[in-house]
Amino acid sequence: MTAARYDVIGIGNAIVDIIGRCDEAFLADVGVAKGSMRLVDAAEIQKIYAGMGPAVEISGGSAANTIAGIASFGGSAAFIGTVANDEFGRIFSHDIRSIGVTFDAPPVSNGTPTSRSLILVTPDGERTMNTYLGISTNLGEAQLDLDMIRASSILYLEGYLFDEPQAKQAFRAALTAAKEAGRKTALTLSDGFCVDRHRDEFLKLIRSGIDILFANESEIKSLYQTESFEFAAENARADTKLAVLTRSAKGSEILFEGETIRIGTFPVEEVVDTTGAGDLYAAGFLFGYAKGLHLETAGRLASLAASEIISHTGARPAVSLAGFARQHGIIS
Amino acid sequence: MTAARYDVIGIGNAIVDIIGRCDEAFLADVGVAKGSMRLVDAAEIQKIYAGMGPAVEISGGSAANTIAGIASFGGSAAFIGTVANDEFGRIFSHDIRSIGVTFDAPPVSNGTPTSRSLILVTPDGERTMNTYLGISTNLGEAQLDLDMIRASSILYLEGYLFDEPQAKQAFRAALTAAKEAGRKTALTLSDGFCVDRHRDEFLKLIRSGIDILFANESEIKSLYQTESFEFAAENARADTKLAVLTRSAKGSEILFEGETIRIGTFPVEEVVDTTGAGDLYAAGFLFGYAKGLHLETAGRLASLAASEIISHTGARPAVSLAGFARQHGIIS
Repeated sequence: MTAARYDVIGIGNAIVDIIGRCDEAFLADVGVAKGSMRLVDAAEIQKIYAGMGPAVEISGGSAANTIAGIASFGGSAAFIGTVANDEFGRIFSHDIRSIGVTFDAPPVSNGTPTSRSLILVTPDGERTMNTYLGISTNLGEAQLDLDMIRASSILYLEGYLFDEPQAKQAFRAALTAAKEAGRKTALTLSDGFCVDRHRDEFLKLIRSGIDILFANESEIKSLYQTESFEFAAENARADTKLAVLTRSAKGSEILFEGETIRIGTFPVEEVVDTTGAGDLYAAGFLFGYAKGLHLETAGRLASLAASEIISHTGARPAVSLAGFARQHGIIS
Repeated sequence: MTAARYDVIGIGNAIVDIIGRCDEAFLADVGVAKGSMRLVDAAEIQKIYAGMGPAVEISGGSAANTIAGIASFGGSAAFIGTVANDEFGRIFSHDIRSIGVTFDAPPVSNGTPTSRSLILVTPDGERTMNTYLGISTNLGEAQLDLDMIRASSILYLEGYLFDEPQAKQAFRAALTAAKEAGRKTALTLSDGFCVDRHRDEFLKLIRSGIDILFANESEIKSLYQTESFEFAAENARADTKLAVLTRSAKGSEILFEGETIRIGTFPVEEVVDTTGAGDLYAAGFLFGYAKGLHLETAGRLASLAASEIISHTGARPAVSLAGFARQHGIIS
């Protein structure tokens, strides 16, 4: 096995977030479950946009946020995803490259626009997402740079890719390439409803050997169809080498063989917008893991990154996470 | 004179801001004076964008920010400006309409893109702007809805319009319509360099009868070519009916005939981004003035709105300014 060129390579939907604030009544009108992600078509996204208040546009995408976070910590990172040759595609490409991530996919010009997610943030800071996949549905095996995957210590995949048949194929091909090269593989379950749509396939995939599984409480409960977090967690422990489970304000648990490491949350003055909390948690953990830090230290970096992201609007770090971690004395 | 349909109508460049953080060295590299606005062409804006870090996109434009602020206070407001039939045009139109502003100009499809400003924010929160006018250069007399102007209590114009001959013509035509209808007229000088480019014309215009003049310290000093704020202020008092002068952390002064009303700043925990401070100050003042409040109360609303806008990234209010003003007991 040759030395890795990248700490982490991520594959995911290349999305620009359109983030606006709304009240609970608007969520009910739109007919979307609070805290979830649902896929919408072009007509539906226009309808919701027309009804929502002023917004801001910030690059997003689950795995893309994680990869940007890893770069912000000072890790070497690459991203694979598809953008169109349009304004949102230029925004996405600029933002991820300018934070130091390798992202060299040429934009696609077939008339389908770059993916976007209308993110509705309620007064409690919770985000609810309406995603139009657009050109991300174009992501397939052909877009994979297998050499780049083989040259990365960790391959990180978002569960959302399972919502598109082509992307799912790419997902499997990437896993095979990473494993053959002796690299680690990591997966985030992304969303409870996404798990619901693909439960059996996710379980099969996890049991066939994912090294690091990320999930929040509702996702892991959905995976094992239980109301008990503890029951779900023990199943995850049995099915994976390393399960990293987040529980919002309750902190997180890292399950490694017989051991359970509990990580507290970092205090946040005000939870402004939870968009990207899980993504940035994964960023901190993967950065720490790739750098060979103790699992507990990786968990603290994870919690710290999540605390930074929920203190402002948007799912990309507003400060250097490397500097932030140094300020907190977690890394030197 | 018929009753006004709108409290304020604004005319200005319809801009989407692309806001990123940078250090002082980057400003020097780019060759732009800190705190200023300069016009750049399409090639230059691409060059700066390629060199700057991750950014967020938020609707902007000086007069547009003011008009959005007035709507956020609960005032009735309209905006005249030009957008292209592109993604940024849709963002601008959505954001201003969704806050309750009347903005009904059809987008222009001639291949020129919607205006954008690359805003570089240094660690002290100061913003420096590189603006590509794009389709805003299309704004001319033909785009004016003179009935709407005549139906508005106050016509508000941004000095930036003077940088384009067509827009300058529109500017004059709008003033004439407002005056003939017996309405008030207001002007912001926009930028010290902008004043420098058009000093004589600005002076002539102001002396020919602008009811309310907004300027910050560097703009008013530039207008009267003096290093003394006091000297500049007395000149402004002589030349206008009502001069409203802002001095950043030193607060502001409202000069009305022989009287000077001094307004303090509202405390801000951290100055995150000064973009829009002057625009939102004008919003608070114009809202209060249109509603017939005391000049001092209008000034306090102005300071309050400025304090809200500099506490976060972007030049559009993140909260309802009406609610914010009620919380502070300025209006009931």
